[in-house]
Amino acid sequence: MISCAADVSIRPHLLSRFLRANTKDGVTTLLPDFLPSQLPPRDSIQDRWLWDSEEWRKQRGGLPSCLVIATEGPVFSSGHDLSEMKGKPKEEIKEIFDLCSEVMSLIRRSPSVVISRINGIATAAGAQLAATTDIVIASPSSSFGTPGVRVGLYCTTPGVAVARAFPPKTAFGMLATARTLSAKEAHEKGMVTFLSKVEGEGEVHALDQLVHDVALDITSSGSQIQALGKWSFYTQIGMREGGGDGMEAAVKWAGEIMARNAKLDDAKEGFSAFLEKRKPSWKT
Amino acid sequence: MISCAADVSIRPHLLSRFLRANTKDGVTTLLPDFLPSQLPPRDSIQDRWLWDSEEWRKQRGGLPSCLVIATEGPVFSSGHDLSEMKGKPKEEIKEIFDLCSEVMSLIRRSPSVVISRINGIATAAGAQLAATTDIVIASPSSSFGTPGVRVGLYCTTPGVAVARAFPPKTAFGMLATARTLSAKEAHEKGMVTFLSKVEGEGEVHALDQLVHDVALDITSSGSQIQALGKWSFYTQIGMREGGGDGMEAAVKWAGEIMARNAKLDDAKEGFSAFLEKRKPSWKT
Amino acid sequence: MISCAADVSIRPHLLSRFLRANTKDGVTTLLPDFLPSQLPPRDSIQDRWLWDSEEWRKQRGGLPSCLVIATEGPVFSSGHDLSEMKGKPKEEIKEIFDLCSEVMSLIRRSPSVVISRINGIATAAGAQLAATTDIVIASPSSSFGTPGVRVGLYCTTPGVAVARAFPPKTAFGMLATARTLSAKEAHEKGMVTFLSKVEGEGEVHALDQLVHDVALDITSSGSQIQALGKWSFYTQIGMREGGGDGMEAAVKWAGEIMARNAKLDDAKEGFSAFLEKRKPSWKT
Repeated sequence: MISCAADVSIRPHLLSRFLRANTKDGVTTLLPDFLPSQLPPRDSIQDRWLWDSEEWRKQRGGLPSCLVIATEGPVFSSGHDLSEMKGKPKEEIKEIFDLCSEVMSLIRRSPSVVISRINGIATAAGAQLAATTDIVIASPSSSFGTPGVRVGLYCTTPGVAVARAFPPKTAFGMLATARTLSAKEAHEKGMVTFLSKVEGEGEVHALDQLVHDVALDITSSGSQIQALGKWSFYTQIGMREGGGDGMEAAVKWAGEIMARNAKLDDAKEGFSAFLEKRKPSWKT
Repeated sequence: MISCAADVSIRPHLLSRFLRANTKDGVTTLLPDFLPSQLPPRDSIQDRWLWDSEEWRKQRGGLPSCLVIATEGPVFSSGHDLSEMKGKPKEEIKEIFDLCSEVMSLIRRSPSVVISRINGIATAAGAQLAATTDIVIASPSSSFGTPGVRVGLYCTTPGVAVARAFPPKTAFGMLATARTLSAKEAHEKGMVTFLSKVEGEGEVHALDQLVHDVALDITSSGSQIQALGKWSFYTQIGMREGGGDGMEAAVKWAGEIMARNAKLDDAKEGFSAFLEKRKPSWKT
Repeated sequence: MISCAADVSIRPHLLSRFLRANTKDGVTTLLPDFLPSQLPPRDSIQDRWLWDSEEWRKQRGGLPSCLVIATEGPVFSSGHDLSEMKGKPKEEIKEIFDLCSEVMSLIRRSPSVVISRINGIATAAGAQLAATTDIVIASPSSSFGTPGVRVGLYCTTPGVAVARAFPPKTAFGMLATARTLSAKEAHEKGMVTFLSKVEGEGEVHALDQLVHDVALDITSSGSQIQALGKWSFYTQIGMREGGGDGMEAAVKWAGEIMARNAKLDDAKEGFSAFLEKRKPSWKT
């Protein structure tokens, strides 16, 4: 059971198998739809866990503030296994992609910040997995590709995340030519959030250190603030009310979010600590 | 009073206090909503100042073609004063953010091109202020950050402008980790429009020279053309009619804009000057 | 006659004059509207050529998988001829822009991947032409600009494609100041898909080699897969259903596309060739 207003259906076993979701007493808490209308009236209890520090502490269960998706060996992920699809009827193939899209929803809906740690090659659905996470951290010798066109199966699904992380022409170039992009170029283009500096000897160690440092940056803030911030971020980026890039409408909406945020326990503690020049002791 | 079809309310004192708006006989002229439907019928008088050179000259008043937001000292702006918010009821905090969002609207709605000159640190609402201006010019030792999460108040409002100026993963990384971005990286990622080259000794002088040169580039064009161009730009970028990135619908719409533009006094003068190989003498 | 569900009207002579479209027995095949609703029911025959390998082979005619727009000399294109517009009534000027926007639609709607080969200056509608192609390949000494504001005619129409290929602040800076961007910076910002490495002596040769290699990458995949991939790409990038960046809805939709793709002749051949470790022999 999913306790939020989310219009998303995710198979229960995925919640535990693929990502450690926030499940307590059989209820799994995920972020609501990324729509400004999901901002509940102040006296509503809907999704209260995002807006009420007491409720957050009750619901959080064992959910960490930050999740890291990492793999071992020289390949981050090369996506689907073609032999699984070959000769299957269309409906069974669709089922594989449905499962895949639920994993992507789970990453987006997780109240945790999801990091992918890339050391090596991330191609096809592997590139999609990376591009779908909130933060991509890569070693410089890593690379990204969407080579499906080479086997007659265009990487349309990976392209969804890739075209939202890269500039559109970069994404299209990858899809149509099957050429890969180095992690350095992917960082220049904005898809890799943080690029590890050490190449060759010590590369893995430096990557792990960077992942550790970034995860520490995230977990050293209040967990409810991170969850609220993540939901608000993915909501505001889509707002286009009033035309143009929607900046004016989104800013007004975001002001309401911040005013509510300012009344949460972690904000009260954060303000006091800042003004008293001491380290905050987070409440969530 | 605001003389345009704008669905925006901005406190009168802001118009004079924060940005020199185009106020004449008590009427302030701002750009209309950034919606293609705001393109008035050819025989309408609505927003005639954008479409009629005579009317533009009447309404322009003392409005410059270009405004520069600059600050003194090593900090461009670090945003809100937390002590102003601490302990305040939610409605008073909301009021602070409402005021802030009106300043952002004023920048976007100003018929002038608004430049921010960044020399130093621009964080939280300071990063928002910079990212909201039309053109960001920065010295290489400057930096940008949205560290609100560190004090329990996620930079959701700054994130609106930051996520529209940076690639989304870069923006999210800044918001969730509170890590800053150097002006060089911000230029690489497209948020800094022009980066000054000189670092260290002479840095401020070189920045001022670049700001001066860019402002001169802008003011050496007709003021009505700049205003019409700004409104059209922020309108077309939001058009998604017909699906995809909306390119086809936006191009058709833009063709109508350019055909009207071609009949304005400055275009007539510009065409003549170009074909006669002489310097134009702008009419607005 | 246009055989697809496209809500686009393109003058017949353009189809042959400007781009070699897929015309057979007087019927020209273009990509349908970039809307998820254009995905036809499985048993429908609408746009069957995208979904049926047999039908594709019938309709394809002489259409190549890849088209290259190239010009000779030191200028790729500097756009419209101002003397053509000077003194003309508004409706005649509008007609010029209508023709221009049909060329842009033709590039977007072509089932072929359209490459622009840039060697030199691409300004105004020339920059638009480049930015509208699917893939931009440039030599390092090339440059891009939208200097219309200098002659009183703001590059609003070029700005549509430029603002969809560059980050928004980069695009606005070009439009308002008339400053040009080098191909290197345009590559860094994502507008140039592939940048040739050799500058000075041998520059043209290296550019031609790169264009040849990229075109070969594209044509060495099945032509139907490229066409389906292109249509799906431009459709999914615009999907915003469910809020935010629309990732979740787009991924679900894309899963259906890939399941259908997997049943096309080229996918069957591609899967077999991959698993049998041999070179595929494409069916379209």
